[in-house]
Amino acid sequence: MTLKVLGYAAQSATDALAPYRFERREPRADDVVIEILYCGVCHSDLHNARNDWNNTLYPVVPGHEIVGRVLSVGPQVTRFQAGDHVAVGCMVDSCQHCAACERGQEQYCVEFPTVTYNALDRHDQRPTYGGYSEQIVVTEQFVLKVPAGLDLPASAPLLCAGITTWSPLRHWKVGKGSKVAVVGLGGLGHMALKLAKALGADVTLFTRSPGKEQDARRLGADRIVLSTDAQQMAAVGGQFDLIVDTVPYVHDVNPYVPTLAVGGTLVLVGYLGELEPALDTSPLVLQRKSVAGSLIGGIAETQELLDFCGAHGITSDVEVIRIQDINAAFERMLNSDVKYRFVIDMASLQA
Amino acid sequence: MTLKVLGYAAQSATDALAPYRFERREPRADDVVIEILYCGVCHSDLHNARNDWNNTLYPVVPGHEIVGRVLSVGPQVTRFQAGDHVAVGCMVDSCQHCAACERGQEQYCVEFPTVTYNALDRHDQRPTYGGYSEQIVVTEQFVLKVPAGLDLPASAPLLCAGITTWSPLRHWKVGKGSKVAVVGLGGLGHMALKLAKALGADVTLFTRSPGKEQDARRLGADRIVLSTDAQQMAAVGGQFDLIVDTVPYVHDVNPYVPTLAVGGTLVLVGYLGELEPALDTSPLVLQRKSVAGSLIGGIAETQELLDFCGAHGITSDVEVIRIQDINAAFERMLNSDVKYRFVIDMASLQA
Ligand SMILES: [Zn+2]
Ligand SMILES: [Zn+2]
Ligand SMILES: [Zn+2]
Ligand SMILES: [Zn+2]
Repeated sequence: MTLKVLGYAAQSATDALAPYRFERREPRADDVVIEILYCGVCHSDLHNARNDWNNTLYPVVPGHEIVGRVLSVGPQVTRFQAGDHVAVGCMVDSCQHCAACERGQEQYCVEFPTVTYNALDRHDQRPTYGGYSEQIVVTEQFVLKVPAGLDLPASAPLLCAGITTWSPLRHWKVGKGSKVAVVGLGGLGHMALKLAKALGADVTLFTRSPGKEQDARRLGADRIVLSTDAQQMAAVGGQFDLIVDTVPYVHDVNPYVPTLAVGGTLVLVGYLGELEPALDTSPLVLQRKSVAGSLIGGIAETQELLDFCGAHGITSDVEVIRIQDINAAFERMLNSDVKYRFVIDMASLQA
Repeated sequence: MTLKVLGYAAQSATDALAPYRFERREPRADDVVIEILYCGVCHSDLHNARNDWNNTLYPVVPGHEIVGRVLSVGPQVTRFQAGDHVAVGCMVDSCQHCAACERGQEQYCVEFPTVTYNALDRHDQRPTYGGYSEQIVVTEQFVLKVPAGLDLPASAPLLCAGITTWSPLRHWKVGKGSKVAVVGLGGLGHMALKLAKALGADVTLFTRSPGKEQDARRLGADRIVLSTDAQQMAAVGGQFDLIVDTVPYVHDVNPYVPTLAVGGTLVLVGYLGELEPALDTSPLVLQRKSVAGSLIGGIAETQELLDFCGAHGITSDVEVIRIQDINAAFERMLNSDVKYRFVIDMASLQA
């Protein structure tokens, strides 16, 4: 008995998102059936809808920043029950036995994790569909608990924007006394500021546009550095233990490297592609610096983030929209015209 | 009373090295006066002699892989006495109070270390002259002990080629169970093989030229991978915790990145310049990999290396030459025609 659900899908790279009825799998013994209450809008949603990465399986139902309520659970499920507030992020399954999975790094699963949409379920080979829909069915291992007291719509972006910045902050051991810089102030960047600050770091925002000072300070930045101003850049030379670079398009990272301290790391979380202009290795060699990348985060690490946010009252700054406005929201997102994440109120689906 | 010494110097970028008489400083209270017995020949020596980096102060006396015997010590020197076998590497001084120096990372001194030649002494502003000479005067803090039993000429390359590969192996915690690959089989590469093996790692050599198999295995490689063979490269996908890339000229690092394990690091120790072709960040992001650099090593770390080599009977494979043959040796080194390091027997200077 499959579940019939309503969602929003793109039928091709050139179609706008529109209502779409489809089936979810019959819940398996380890499955949790979730009523989706809110779903964040990630740049990946747009890229997948428009086949920007040439790998979209249509129709595609985007959405991987999901917050909802448990409707029912399979007989083997032990950690959830109907009524619980839960969340689902970018992954809904993985091999669960490789070295990466055993370390709790399902995002680096050697067989690749099953992503929340635009993938095939690893058990029944049916397409996965994301959070722009009424309900989702997910194995218990990939369902997160939402701590009591967190605003539900504002929690949704923690599942992608949040964990994507949390994971490198934790991996590179950011804490009290750390000096962290963030490149870019969008969905990821604004979470990086909040999380780095809450971890006790001294936090700097690099930005190319003046006028973000007030907002950046409110979000946790101790200072703002205009990356186009050579004097401001020189003034922060040799400072940062970690730079979290959230810029999602090709850009020159060379100006940031000299602002790393000896042994520091610039970690790219937004840009996949060729580093151009060419990376100069001299400051890497002369001061044992690194350029690294990082991808979302593992399931246990995501729960850790949610619990940390619950304890510190941290959520995303969001603009809640109706599903009917998703295509306009995509356009605004492309123009960085959102502070700092759109979240769909899924109740609008019934309107 | 300065010391008058004989050495070999280049007088200009186009002059061959030739005998040169110059003065060493009058020993200060914390100085050790060393009779130089052997000096290794590093690629940097050639580059400095020929002004390849546009910063050579002429005349230049190269040489920073120095092994010798203590002739005398200043009144404040406590750890050395006349007759001791000692060594001097790439640095002869540093600020000794910055954060890097206090961590024992004098190579990353915020004021820059005083290098062994082609620099100005930080106290008297006189030029520093290197190991292609009879004697050298060095503050006790930058003099190393050579463990008893190590072959003296074969120990000289530990001071640059050795420490340059040792430092990243230690920083990235290579030990039993680690999988390490080395790119390039020259002075640095052959030391990397020996040291990684002695640390207990499983060791692979990447090379572009077949025919190095036997030598590589003798030096410590468990396997050899032809980097030009796509099938061999694919067979080692996702394997290595650390790749030590010793190639000193511009080269494509992209083929090596997929052979790193999740979380692995490719560390450049030989090439300063722009990474071309452009570095693809995708495998960095998708598997939390890093591209890093590393520069020689600190003084305490160099002593650690020498002690490790003493305990494990490790030295460099060297070809001992007379100082009169240095210009021919430079040419052979340019053609990689040395297994694996030239070392000058400084007794030849008196011939
Ligand atoms: Zn996302
Ligand atoms: Zn796995
Ligand atoms: Zn050298
Ligand atoms: Zn210093």
